[in-house]
Amino acid sequence: MNGTTTVRTAAVLGVGLIGGSGAAALRASGCEVVGWDRDTDSALRAVELGIISRACATIAEAVHGCDVAIVAVPVGAAAEIICAALVADANVIVTDVGSVKESVLAEVEASGGSDAARFVGGHPMAGSELDGLDGANADLFRGATWVLTPTDITDAVAFATVRSLVADMGAEAIAITPHDHDLFVATVSHVPQLAASTLMDTALGVGAQHSTLLRLAAGGFRDMTRIAAGNPSIWPDIFSNNKAAVLTALDRYMAALADVRLHLESGDRAGLLAMLQRARQGRRSLPLGATSVGELAELHVLVPDRPGVIAEITTLAGRLGVNVFDLEIAHSIEGDRGVMVLVVAAGENADKFESGLRDLGYSTSRATFE
Amino acid sequence: MNGTTTVRTAAVLGVGLIGGSGAAALRASGCEVVGWDRDTDSALRAVELGIISRACATIAEAVHGCDVAIVAVPVGAAAEIICAALVADANVIVTDVGSVKESVLAEVEASGGSDAARFVGGHPMAGSELDGLDGANADLFRGATWVLTPTDITDAVAFATVRSLVADMGAEAIAITPHDHDLFVATVSHVPQLAASTLMDTALGVGAQHSTLLRLAAGGFRDMTRIAAGNPSIWPDIFSNNKAAVLTALDRYMAALADVRLHLESGDRAGLLAMLQRARQGRRSLPLGATSVGELAELHVLVPDRPGVIAEITTLAGRLGVNVFDLEIAHSIEGDRGVMVLVVAAGENADKFESGLRDLGYSTSRATFE
Repeated sequence: MNGTTTVRTAAVLGVGLIGGSGAAALRASGCEVVGWDRDTDSALRAVELGIISRACATIAEAVHGCDVAIVAVPVGAAAEIICAALVADANVIVTDVGSVKESVLAEVEASGGSDAARFVGGHPMAGSELDGLDGANADLFRGATWVLTPTDITDAVAFATVRSLVADMGAEAIAITPHDHDLFVATVSHVPQLAASTLMDTALGVGAQHSTLLRLAAGGFRDMTRIAAGNPSIWPDIFSNNKAAVLTALDRYMAALADVRLHLESGDRAGLLAMLQRARQGRRSLPLGATSVGELAELHVLVPDRPGVIAEITTLAGRLGVNVFDLEIAHSIEGDRGVMVLVVAAGENADKFESGLRDLGYSTSRATFE
Repeated sequence: MNGTTTVRTAAVLGVGLIGGSGAAALRASGCEVVGWDRDTDSALRAVELGIISRACATIAEAVHGCDVAIVAVPVGAAAEIICAALVADANVIVTDVGSVKESVLAEVEASGGSDAARFVGGHPMAGSELDGLDGANADLFRGATWVLTPTDITDAVAFATVRSLVADMGAEAIAITPHDHDLFVATVSHVPQLAASTLMDTALGVGAQHSTLLRLAAGGFRDMTRIAAGNPSIWPDIFSNNKAAVLTALDRYMAALADVRLHLESGDRAGLLAMLQRARQGRRSLPLGATSVGELAELHVLVPDRPGVIAEITTLAGRLGVNVFDLEIAHSIEGDRGVMVLVVAAGENADKFESGLRDLGYSTSRATFE
């Protein structure tokens, strides 16, 4: 860690769709990128495709001397490779792309000790870590949301560096706690997968007549079950790593269906219609990717040099829906405190964010500019 | 009823998306089409658009002298208009397009008496009976499946005429019982709608952080909740008219989700994977619309002149997944029996169909041709 957040050299560990696309995006932004993969052929193929400059034989060789290592392997294998990267170079900052965070972070913090401060959990909301290299492209993450999950021990410079790395790949970083991340993806990804596959499976269960039944399936059913056609081998690992959150989200879904059933049975048209209308309103206001950048505000926050500050501030922004366009950390000469500079959209959200920071005891000042 | 199945004149009662598209398709096939709508402006607009040749002031005026009347109004209003059409002309054959069949048929048979033999329930698997006239087009039903639901009292000529009408609009007719139809659409349409809206509503229920959560929603969630964005006003009527079947299908879905929950909780990876793989296989083999026509077989079936024959034979075809490309009824001179000619795809399914017919006691003969 050299105090700067500019990434000049990166190691990609695991060159499938996500790792390969990240490597391609970073090379396009002028970064040198080397790679390693458990499957040597994949790494060589990535060199052939011009996605990485060099295929390394070991994790240690790939990581040594790099500013950042990006671990892009399935969730079940992530913690081990993250820890291997952290020990391979005492200065490297490590991030990952897995779709479950709390269990991976717990494992890294348990076996990595103080090295774990250099690990920042990440999860781009695009592609899947199991898909192959051949679909890799430098624009996969353009405009996508990329979750970062700082914890109480996360180093501020490590966080700012990974944030900058994410921006270099064209994505928008958002910081939330690992716990919230896992519950959110359980709600919008893991339970929807179960709901889609179960719906498809139920339709098959109608028995001998199911071929007739499926001729009646129109566009809505096709839309709802599309994700059931994907490769299922990714899911058992995800479900086992995110068990508590998936059970919580599934219980909420099943309880809501039970409510709907009551409305149906009692002929409560108003209750049904109210639910359908709330859902319609919600669906129509789903964000469509990148937010447009209007007037910006620069917040300066005096930060003490104590654990948890970076997580506290960035997850406050995430919780309030405040989009952080840039983040910089300037340490003061005294060394026991510094200034965090956050660039956010001006307006109501910036006001809420600033007053939230003050509620937490921080001193802030701000400037607005176009 | 004049014994022929060619439709030369049709009345469309209700000129929204479905009625308007049906009218446009029939005009394109050379049929004369008049129209009526509760909303006079819609009928006049349909004339302006060239979809119907004349806007009629009353149902009786529209139906009088027509071969067929197509009732294309929301499910809650269908039975009343079907009965009005049946009494308006003692020879007219009536069909509808509603997404629920058993309750509508019961109402028509209860109030229509023997006239109900001239009613053939129908449901095209394309568009929605609540959408507006402006999206109407002659190709809406091309290649779509169009369910017909003959019952024990359905007149054979009425059925063959409506079948021919459906073919004239470019759709493929499939006959199933009203009860099966209602359970099938509950399974592939009504419950999926509830599942999608409930999933969206559950995501909103996460509270203050839901705007953050929704930024994490990727393509799968968008696909699954797309139908939640539609106009909800159609649904309370459908749910109330198809209550028993929707409750049955919803109970099956909820029981399947409860099984999935058990697999998750007990860490049963194999059980989960088996369900996901069944669903994947099922989703990948969803029929993609019109089947291609290869070698055909012509089945001749001696049919006694007794109630229920037409329903028995055509729903047997539906149950076996046999696609009937053409159907004709030739009455013999004696008058107490006739020959039904069915054109189906040759091969295994035709064999199963023929042996099913023989099991039911029918005499059959067949010819195969390209």
